[in-house]
Amino acid sequence: MTSETLLLAGGRVLRPDASVTNADVLVDRDSGRIAEVGPELSADHDADERLDASGGLVIPGLVNAHTHVAMTLLRGYADDKPLDTWLREDIWPAEAELTPADVRAGAELGMVEMIRSGTTTFADMYFHVPEIVAAIDEAGMRARVGHGIVTVGKDEAAARADVEESLSVAREYDGAADGRVRTAVMPHSLTTVEESLLREIAAEAHEASIPVHYHANETRDEVEPIVEDRGERPLAYADDLGLLSDAEFLAHGVHVDDVEIDLLADRGTAVVHCPASNMKLASGIAPVQDLLDAGVTVALGTDGAASNNDLDLFDELRDAAMLGKLGADDAAAVPAAAAVRMATEGGAAALSLPGGRVEVGAAADLAVVDLDAPHLAPAHDLVSHLAYAARGSDVRHTVCDGEVLMRDREVLTLDEERVVETARERAADLASRTE
Amino acid sequence: MTSETLLLAGGRVLRPDASVTNADVLVDRDSGRIAEVGPELSADHDADERLDASGGLVIPGLVNAHTHVAMTLLRGYADDKPLDTWLREDIWPAEAELTPADVRAGAELGMVEMIRSGTTTFADMYFHVPEIVAAIDEAGMRARVGHGIVTVGKDEAAARADVEESLSVAREYDGAADGRVRTAVMPHSLTTVEESLLREIAAEAHEASIPVHYHANETRDEVEPIVEDRGERPLAYADDLGLLSDAEFLAHGVHVDDVEIDLLADRGTAVVHCPASNMKLASGIAPVQDLLDAGVTVALGTDGAASNNDLDLFDELRDAAMLGKLGADDAAAVPAAAAVRMATEGGAAALSLPGGRVEVGAAADLAVVDLDAPHLAPAHDLVSHLAYAARGSDVRHTVCDGEVLMRDREVLTLDEERVVETARERAADLASRTE
Repeated sequence: MTSETLLLAGGRVLRPDASVTNADVLVDRDSGRIAEVGPELSADHDADERLDASGGLVIPGLVNAHTHVAMTLLRGYADDKPLDTWLREDIWPAEAELTPADVRAGAELGMVEMIRSGTTTFADMYFHVPEIVAAIDEAGMRARVGHGIVTVGKDEAAARADVEESLSVAREYDGAADGRVRTAVMPHSLTTVEESLLREIAAEAHEASIPVHYHANETRDEVEPIVEDRGERPLAYADDLGLLSDAEFLAHGVHVDDVEIDLLADRGTAVVHCPASNMKLASGIAPVQDLLDAGVTVALGTDGAASNNDLDLFDELRDAAMLGKLGADDAAAVPAAAAVRMATEGGAAALSLPGGRVEVGAAADLAVVDLDAPHLAPAHDLVSHLAYAARGSDVRHTVCDGEVLMRDREVLTLDEERVVETARERAADLASRTE
Repeated sequence: MTSETLLLAGGRVLRPDASVTNADVLVDRDSGRIAEVGPELSADHDADERLDASGGLVIPGLVNAHTHVAMTLLRGYADDKPLDTWLREDIWPAEAELTPADVRAGAELGMVEMIRSGTTTFADMYFHVPEIVAAIDEAGMRARVGHGIVTVGKDEAAARADVEESLSVAREYDGAADGRVRTAVMPHSLTTVEESLLREIAAEAHEASIPVHYHANETRDEVEPIVEDRGERPLAYADDLGLLSDAEFLAHGVHVDDVEIDLLADRGTAVVHCPASNMKLASGIAPVQDLLDAGVTVALGTDGAASNNDLDLFDELRDAAMLGKLGADDAAAVPAAAAVRMATEGGAAALSLPGGRVEVGAAADLAVVDLDAPHLAPAHDLVSHLAYAARGSDVRHTVCDGEVLMRDREVLTLDEERVVETARERAADLASRTE
């Protein structure tokens, strides 16, 4: 065998069945896949590169299945306002000022943060997508990206241009960054794009075998107008539009009724739960246990940093397990292992991307979590620790597609110091422009 | 001036009005108080010890106003079960096995974790209190401690012994650890101690000028029996018992109605909000903004590690701000500054302990939060960052009563490695005994 190898040695491994065993993980770099998982592989293999996993737990790289990564530039820009005011007075005016270079700077900052906290894969809806793709290529991450379409309130030419941009970006960048970038067409939501355009988007995307990603059933203010105007629930409308297949993944799904849950399960459409954003914007509590019980694929997302305010998926793991209990009025709902599955396998399935499992043949998208810290002692249950006690800063190494993105807490693919400094400068400049 | 001094130099300071300024902080060690706050004090003072605060924010030491610190030994021991089952099948049997040395080990582990995450002060309800006091003395923290009383289901002699233990511990240890330890009498709740004993406890505690701390209105299952049996709300009952004065502080206060909120405000009784525990045990959402609007002092607590599962008060800051919005159905509720105030000044006020403000004359209980990390960039709003983006691992130094407990992320007062190792050994032994 002449293929280059990477060995994660001396640690424990989180298996797909949520058990934990002492094992090494051997990665075949040429294919970017896991070649072997087992005890003491280092005795048999003289790997080209080694990562010390001793005292750590090898987990699948986390999947942030809904974000707007460039919005890290707006972290703390405006908080504690009702959604509508916050968007109109703060976020939209700031976004109108964002240049391609701002988007690149925000995207790189967000990727440094995600790599540091063990996320290898994400889905992104924003604009200036070529800048985001360039950053992903450099960062070494895996992503499904798209241009967000908002047509309501625009004239016909502008609306048409937005739709075309989303379609052309989705066609052009699918398979970019050595195949690590895949795309989706991304109408913002069922209420911010007109019906005729949504039908056209669905048809064009399906024709090109590209998934569609959109916000759905996030707030009552979004659900009620659809029910009033159309006499049907939003997801019945989505189904009628052709936007509810197993290629689609929806963000939020907070206000979904039982019929809609069954429809999601029947169509194989995934839901990306964003618990922090749903709390911070007072959107409500998604019925996560009900979705899981119905067999819906549930993933986790941070949403943008402006409504979170970080991209640390360990927070979402904890929030999903906790808020799921509160919403179900049942402390047994959304147990730790279910939350971990949503953050890994569920995310990969929702985005139709590789990864999410530590097993032979799976994509070598991995994170090593340090277990030595006082807040992770004692070790009664490591899966519980992942859900309830670990945080992004416990991640020691991050690997994506067989390449090491972070080694011993040092990000290797992006220059962290430069990225943070550039983001600070651009954010200060943006703030001065929008004052 | 011959008093020994400590200077926190080169950073920014969070002022009591939630503004942030560039300033140094000079501490008078003999009094344990802040002597000066202002720019470039290092030019005027040749301090005996210096802490580098450059790139950091000096904040009041965080106050964890309700915990059971020794329960860190049970972190991850049992999760994802309904409260009643969890207590009966897992927690109580495990607690019945805890030796004084186990309690000491769990307390030390919890204190290492709290010091590492910027908490200087806590309130603790547990048993084997002398062990906890000894650990506090060594750790250098500040606390209000007490022995938890449960009498329901016990025979008269055992019930009496539990009450006497709580009273004698409260009398004996008040002022221990150079005055850093204060005490309270701690009946577990209004439903787990009989009325006659609650009346006696109230009378004895007030006679000795010692506050009373208890769980109140945590779950519907606790509120409803009181309403049914007595025809009055729990806090009306507490008021009648003499357990609702400005010396008292109650844990949880989830299910409080408007009349009870007004009663709390009128009596000056503080509420310790424990958002993570309330989510994890599916207890409900406390009406935090309503409590604040009524003028009630609100503090934050982690509760025990078994229902959290960590003692990082930055999580509670974030949870309080987020869950407060969800509960109020208003994204403007419980803004960042209010959450920060609860975790600092609110906590100190609730516990009637010094600290909670960075200003001249206040106790030198301080933490320095690193602001350089990618997840805290850019710097649009540092108070927002404290509430929504910072985590315990961002704390660089921790100071209590003028003494440095952690310097450059190294805990100085406890031997972290030994503490973690001992806790692991004792937890493994406990697990084998309770299998």
